[in-house]
Amino acid sequence: MTDAFLADTTALLERTPRVVRGLLDGLPDSWLDTPDTADGWTPRDVVGHLISAELDDWIPRAERILAHGTKKAFEPFDRFAHTDRDRGVSLSTLIDRFEQLRRDNLVRLGELVGEDDLDKVGRHPELGKVTMRQLLATWAVHDLDHVAQIYAALAGSQDAAVGPWKADLGILLRREGKG
Amino acid sequence: MTDAFLADTTALLERTPRVVRGLLDGLPDSWLDTPDTADGWTPRDVVGHLISAELDDWIPRAERILAHGTKKAFEPFDRFAHTDRDRGVSLSTLIDRFEQLRRDNLVRLGELVGEDDLDKVGRHPELGKVTMRQLLATWAVHDLDHVAQIYAALAGSQDAAVGPWKADLGILLRREGKG
Repeated sequence: MTDAFLADTTALLERTPRVVRGLLDGLPDSWLDTPDTADGWTPRDVVGHLISAELDDWIPRAERILAHGTKKAFEPFDRFAHTDRDRGVSLSTLIDRFEQLRRDNLVRLGELVGEDDLDKVGRHPELGKVTMRQLLATWAVHDLDHVAQIYAALAGSQDAAVGPWKADLGILLRREGKG
Repeated sequence: MTDAFLADTTALLERTPRVVRGLLDGLPDSWLDTPDTADGWTPRDVVGHLISAELDDWIPRAERILAHGTKKAFEPFDRFAHTDRDRGVSLSTLIDRFEQLRRDNLVRLGELVGEDDLDKVGRHPELGKVTMRQLLATWAVHDLDHVAQIYAALAGSQDAAVGPWKADLGILLRREGKG
C-alpha cells in the first residue's frame, strides 16, 4: 500500500521558507515592529522560533523514535531559545538561515524516514506516546500556526489605521481575545 | 511632509498574490478540501473572495470617495459572490486571476490616489464616515485576515493527524472556538 503522507507533508514543509521570504523580505519596517498579541512575538521572533525547531525539535525527535522507540523520551524543547541567540541578527539573515536549515532537514528526512516508519512510536516528555506520523504532521501544522502568527503581527501594526473597519476584521479582534 | 503610508501599504498588497501562489499552487489536494471552520471556507473559497474584493470593493470605493465624498455611500459588498461565479474553475486559474486583478488595481491605485487624498472622507453603508487612509489600510489587513484563514483551513486538514499535539496547536483549537 502506498501512502502519500510523506510526499504531501514534504510539499507543505518545503513551501514555508519560500512563503516567509515572499512575505517578509524587504517589507518596510513599519509592518514589522508589532507583536501578534500584547505579550507575543514579532515576525522576527517567529522566524527565530522556526529556526530553533529546525535545530532542536523535528529531526532530533525523528531520530530518537528510530533509535530508542518509547524507551527514551524526547528532550524538552526550548520555545525561547531565539531570544538570546538571534539578538542583533537581521531578519533577512534569519530567513536565509531558516531556509538553509529546512532544506537540509528535508534531505535528512528523506534519508531517515520511509513509509514503514510512520507508525513507529516514541515518547513525548509531557504528551506521552506519539507516532512518527503525528510528529511529521505536527511539524507541518506548527509551520502553519506560526506563519499565521506572523500574519497576526503584521495586521496588528495597522490596528489603529483601519478605523471603524476593525469591527469586521477577525485577525485584529483575536489579538485582543475577542471575535 | 512625506508619508510612507502609500508605499508601505502597496508593499504589502503586492506581496499577497505571490505568497498565495507560493503556498497553494501545486499543493497536493489532501491539504485543500477542509474549511477553516465547520461552516467556513476552503482555500479555494478564500481566493475567490479575494477576487471579488478586487472587482467590487477597494478600487470602486476609492473612486467613490474621490468622486462623491460622503454624499454617496459605498455599494454594499457581496461576501459570497464567488460561490456561483467560480464554480468549476481550478484553483490555479483563480490564483492567476487574483494576481492579474491585483496587479491592475495597484496600477490604478497609483494613478488614482496621492498623499493629498489620504484624509478624504467617504461613507460606508453600515460603518459611516471612513477615510481613504482607513480604506487602504483595511485593504491590506483584509488580505492578512484571509490569508491567515487559508492557513487555518490547511491546518484543519491535519486535525486528526497530529494526535495529542493538537493541545499545543492554537491554529487547530481556534477552529473550534477554543484556545
